[in-house]
Amino acid sequence: MLLAPRSKIYYITPWPLPERQTLIRLVQAVLRAGVGLVQYRAKQASTRRMYEDAQALLRLTRPFGVPLIINDRLDIALAAGADGVHIGSEDLPTNVARRMMGPSAIVGVSADHPAEARRAERQGASYVACGAVFPSPTKPDKPVIGPHGVAAVQHAVTIPVCAIGGITADNLAELSEVNPALVAVISAINDAPDPYAAARRLVEVARTALPHRVFGP
Amino acid sequence: MLLAPRSKIYYITPWPLPERQTLIRLVQAVLRAGVGLVQYRAKQASTRRMYEDAQALLRLTRPFGVPLIINDRLDIALAAGADGVHIGSEDLPTNVARRMMGPSAIVGVSADHPAEARRAERQGASYVACGAVFPSPTKPDKPVIGPHGVAAVQHAVTIPVCAIGGITADNLAELSEVNPALVAVISAINDAPDPYAAARRLVEVARTALPHRVFGP
Repeated sequence: MLLAPRSKIYYITPWPLPERQTLIRLVQAVLRAGVGLVQYRAKQASTRRMYEDAQALLRLTRPFGVPLIINDRLDIALAAGADGVHIGSEDLPTNVARRMMGPSAIVGVSADHPAEARRAERQGASYVACGAVFPSPTKPDKPVIGPHGVAAVQHAVTIPVCAIGGITADNLAELSEVNPALVAVISAINDAPDPYAAARRLVEVARTALPHRVFGP
Repeated sequence: MLLAPRSKIYYITPWPLPERQTLIRLVQAVLRAGVGLVQYRAKQASTRRMYEDAQALLRLTRPFGVPLIINDRLDIALAAGADGVHIGSEDLPTNVARRMMGPSAIVGVSADHPAEARRAERQGASYVACGAVFPSPTKPDKPVIGPHGVAAVQHAVTIPVCAIGGITADNLAELSEVNPALVAVISAINDAPDPYAAARRLVEVARTALPHRVFGP
């Protein structure tokens, strides 16, 4: 599933976490708009809330064949039966997460630099996410690595690379040359007046600006 | 292990979470003082911090044969190989926690009233914790159920019952008649000028005021 998502747009839910019904409407909208992956991220909520959110989101993503990835919390992913986890440097080590999730789950890892990315691949990561590609409204203090920073990570690993940070429909084409396997989008969808329209435009721009690589004759 | 802890005193780590070295010194002290169980509770810390804390605490508890229980976070318990988890009403459901932890792990559940306690036992709880027995400095808004509230829960279940909330060496004897299987202590140890001495006194008072029940001829 991961290596052939229906689109390169990787949607991440907003924080602070909105109410359940708002969250559901957002995810329904981006799924209809054609995103390829959904990540649920909820640092401050109770475990029960996260578990119930994950169950509700899986009921939405399953019919679309779109993987649901849980940020950080392997307990939530395992309890709800999500498709994978995304872990950062303050979360469990990659090798521990891979062992706990099993060989077929998606284990995404944040790795902004080539050496981190290589280590993540060696320890069992399914993909690495690197950024901030562009200045990010969600993480304003994060160093900007630019498209060339993504290219450097891409040269270091054989697994898919996800570009993240400040990506919008207007700057997506700046990634054409690097052409990452995935692009994560948070603010450009969640802060848009019409999240469905914003996601739809991103999916369409990605389709032309970031073509799937074709192998073989 | 759980049904025959070396003492009825169930120590819970302080929050907000102190630095690693302070935490280690506290747990070393209470282990030397003779507590029967240790619970690690860290709501606001990063997953990596909790994982590393749990690993460090297990190195302390293992030589004493004292179970280490992780509050709420099954991912931490599973990753570090802790002896069990303690879950509250805002955490994973009891039956889900039991399934994930396996049949031999300790799964403790907060259940302040008989009906909740019966449900927890049915769903696989190893013990239930009920309170606040006395007014609690850590949870001042929690209703006080008193020793008779503990007795009511004890009559409802066959699994061990842990009394929690405001318990000190000075009021422990008020629980003599009810004689719960375990008594959880937070402030009376963590806020004491000498946590070792406080834990030691609690262990000694518990030994006489709350005798282990003896079965058989």
